Amino acid sequence: MTETLSLAEPTAPPLDDGDMLAAIDIGSNSFHMVVARYTLGQLRIVDRLRETVRMAEGLDGRGGLAADERQRALECLARFGQRIRDIPPQHVRALATNTVRSLASPQAFLVPAETALGHSIEVISGREEARLIYLGVAHAQPPKAGHRRLVIDIGGGSTECIIGAGFDTLERESLQAGCIATTRRFFGNGKLTRKKWRDAVIEVSAEFQQFANTYRELGWNEALGASGTNKAIGDICAAMKLTKGAVTAEALPQVRDRLLQADRIDAIELPGLSNDRRPIIAGGVLVLEAAFSALGLQRMMVSKGAMREGILYDMLGRGGDNDPRDLSVAAMMQRYGIDEAQAARVEATAMRLFQQVREAWGLDDDDALMLGWAARLHEIGLVIAHSQYHVHGAYLLEHSDISGFSRQEQQVLSSLVRTHRRGVSKSAFDALPDRLLSSAKRKAALLRLAVLLHRSRSAEPIPHLELKAGDDRLDLVVGKRWVDAHPLLRSDLLGEPDDMPGLGITFKPFVA
Amino acid sequence: MTETLSLAEPTAPPLDDGDMLAAIDIGSNSFHMVVARYTLGQLRIVDRLRETVRMAEGLDGRGGLAADERQRALECLARFGQRIRDIPPQHVRALATNTVRSLASPQAFLVPAETALGHSIEVISGREEARLIYLGVAHAQPPKAGHRRLVIDIGGGSTECIIGAGFDTLERESLQAGCIATTRRFFGNGKLTRKKWRDAVIEVSAEFQQFANTYRELGWNEALGASGTNKAIGDICAAMKLTKGAVTAEALPQVRDRLLQADRIDAIELPGLSNDRRPIIAGGVLVLEAAFSALGLQRMMVSKGAMREGILYDMLGRGGDNDPRDLSVAAMMQRYGIDEAQAARVEATAMRLFQQVREAWGLDDDDALMLGWAARLHEIGLVIAHSQYHVHGAYLLEHSDISGFSRQEQQVLSSLVRTHRRGVSKSAFDALPDRLLSSAKRKAALLRLAVLLHRSRSAEPIPHLELKAGDDRLDLVVGKRWVDAHPLLRSDLLGEPDDMPGLGITFKPFVA
Repeated sequence: MTETLSLAEPTAPPLDDGDMLAAIDIGSNSFHMVVARYTLGQLRIVDRLRETVRMAEGLDGRGGLAADERQRALECLARFGQRIRDIPPQHVRALATNTVRSLASPQAFLVPAETALGHSIEVISGREEARLIYLGVAHAQPPKAGHRRLVIDIGGGSTECIIGAGFDTLERESLQAGCIATTRRFFGNGKLTRKKWRDAVIEVSAEFQQFANTYRELGWNEALGASGTNKAIGDICAAMKLTKGAVTAEALPQVRDRLLQADRIDAIELPGLSNDRRPIIAGGVLVLEAAFSALGLQRMMVSKGAMREGILYDMLGRGGDNDPRDLSVAAMMQRYGIDEAQAARVEATAMRLFQQVREAWGLDDDDALMLGWAARLHEIGLVIAHSQYHVHGAYLLEHSDISGFSRQEQQVLSSLVRTHRRGVSKSAFDALPDRLLSSAKRKAALLRLAVLLHRSRSAEPIPHLELKAGDDRLDLVVGKRWVDAHPLLRSDLLGEPDDMPGLGITFKPFVA
Repeated sequence: MTETLSLAEPTAPPLDDGDMLAAIDIGSNSFHMVVARYTLGQLRIVDRLRETVRMAEGLDGRGGLAADERQRALECLARFGQRIRDIPPQHVRALATNTVRSLASPQAFLVPAETALGHSIEVISGREEARLIYLGVAHAQPPKAGHRRLVIDIGGGSTECIIGAGFDTLERESLQAGCIATTRRFFGNGKLTRKKWRDAVIEVSAEFQQFANTYRELGWNEALGASGTNKAIGDICAAMKLTKGAVTAEALPQVRDRLLQADRIDAIELPGLSNDRRPIIAGGVLVLEAAFSALGLQRMMVSKGAMREGILYDMLGRGGDNDPRDLSVAAMMQRYGIDEAQAARVEATAMRLFQQVREAWGLDDDDALMLGWAARLHEIGLVIAHSQYHVHGAYLLEHSDISGFSRQEQQVLSSLVRTHRRGVSKSAFDALPDRLLSSAKRKAALLRLAVLLHRSRSAEPIPHLELKAGDDRLDLVVGKRWVDAHPLLRSDLLGEPDDMPGLGITFKPFVA
């Protein structure tokens, strides 16, 4: 069993002293990049970049992105890319959030964006965004032991609201109410009125209301506002001499009243407000007022921590002993009552097969991780029904909020589970970007084979197997004695070539 | 809270002494009907009908049903219908199994079939079929305390395999391998050879193999064969003087060898075999041989109990304190971590609203049960993700194997959960038969309203509400004081008429 990849062994190379890491946040308002150096077990930030791209303003409400915003985004990414030209791809993580989430065809943006950046870009869910924000804030302001913390991050497209303790989140929510989106929604014509403001606060409060009781019951010891919007509002409070930079239940209405002295967005005058932020401050103040009201907030400090730092710290855990994805997979296995013995057998065999074709197929450590998780989760759909359980499993993996995974990673898992048995539907890999297609199909072939070899669910070990991979082919040599003793396996192996072609791979079993 | 329907109160009228009940099994090989009289707390069978319709022979492999078989089915149902003309609809339950499950458009068969029978017909899943078979067998041969029992039922289209203890099942499986389906699959040209038989046994064994280890680990004290096929094979064993009616590991190969003396299906000669069963006995013996081999069976007794009796006994539980559906809903609530307090609030309010419009809208006890279950389960999709959770919940309720529910009942639950918030998609009710459409939309309107009224998730009780229903309208009168104190509720109530039209119902809120 030395070939088996166990949970306890870290699979990605640990970072070396002096390694550079970069995290890029492709946000709806601004794009951020932080570059850090890993030294003496710590991360040291060596560079920070921020550009106001305001990509969310280019959303046309039908899933399209206007040419101007698209162009601004690509140019910014190209500039970012130049700065990190020398950092190896596995040390760069670029994540896109709400605006890219709401595109009808994210790939149409992502493909040129990846080219501009020179690195792959992943899309994450709102709840994963919330987790990374919390992680960034927790590292910026180390939490007190036993304290609960409420963190609110008002982005351009969405607002994240988290309760956490230590470095872990307890509750995470993502609302479709960022500062750009909210400004456009209620003040799209540029005009401000008190009446419109009041109605808007009620509507946005209703969004917070959905989880406000849960949050209030759980409670928190301190509230922190992340994001440029919260910082700007804190700065206004300070400039108006209402607080020293915090936002309070007394100060916020005064900021709002001062803001509403203007009757148009472009006439807003607030002490300490940069021109840059004027067009979107109304939505930001509105969302924060709704949050204060729904959550009964009295005082919120401003934090400098943000998702970009969260991404960096998450990269330290990834691939190692504390990969958050391992925990998520284990939690799902438990919640959905997966047969752990069978999952472990399939995983061990999948890993044995993987090691034999890894080089020929150019698969890497990330592929090994994905294949392992897919093996652990391949029977998840049984919780729904036996019939078509691979389809149900694919649904769960595609749509669930799974901590630590990007959307593309979930899509890969979903495709592997979708195709682990029965005919391979042509659409099974449609959601994947082209760059992931070939390696996903190869992993799918390995998972199919591992599942097939364990179809009897027997604890009996599988003897030595020889697997050879060519570009579009896979040859398996199995011992005659073993096959003869397992007639079902023989019929399964012989039946397999009918299905594998759906993966574009010719499978040939040989009995020797 | 006197208007609230609690779990503990039976909602369907209890049976009266002397009531007649009928159960109809619309099987792939034969149709069965049993009529029973409820007296002194017991069921007494007063009539049994069986017709060999062999509906599965009409399946064309593309989801269509040949005209001959369709005609035979309708004529049989019309004859059955005549016999139960005087039994009230709520005391008749007609269930269709594998053949109707495999139709591309079941409604095209079910609508004329319901007309012929004069009663509604429900389709059930293979695992629900397995549960009812076990219930029928358990009542025919009361189980010994502490004993585990394996029950195998070889139908025309599918084979059910159950382990149970007492009156409850522990494991249930349904395989696409009935006696008609298997005969057609391997001997479709009418020819029999030993080679083909051997290969076929391996293929069918592989189906059993999927769960054989789980079953063998659980173990059983006795094996029972239900279904006409098992009874016929037991009769052959007896006629061949191999056993006194049981099927054993020694006898079965002898039956098979005798069968294979014929080289064509229509030349099969077996002692004790009726002409009626000759065309389908090969598939039956083959499935049983595969089951014996995969499960390591030594001896199987034949039981007279069958699904039809299971349906009768299930009807005794339905609507009362022991409704199996209540247990299933409770189990799902627990498995998927549903917020029980919120579910209970929504259910209580839904029931209050229901009582006010019940008469005007012609809703009955079954509607009350459905609405209550939908209320308990409406947040089930949150286990997957927040975003679009109503869609995920609908998916779970449509596709899950839920004990005690027919497919249509699950479809109703799924539609109610699908439409309990956000815009009502036109396709949400597509899967329902016409006869259920209007009452489903009405229940959906009530659930929407109950969810809306509890959107704040507050434990604060809801004051008196006045709800009036007309054909396509719903007027809600709410107290001014209450609405004024809840501005979010006001905006929700005012926003609702935009969405309700998707249900074909005009909703008007009045503040008085």
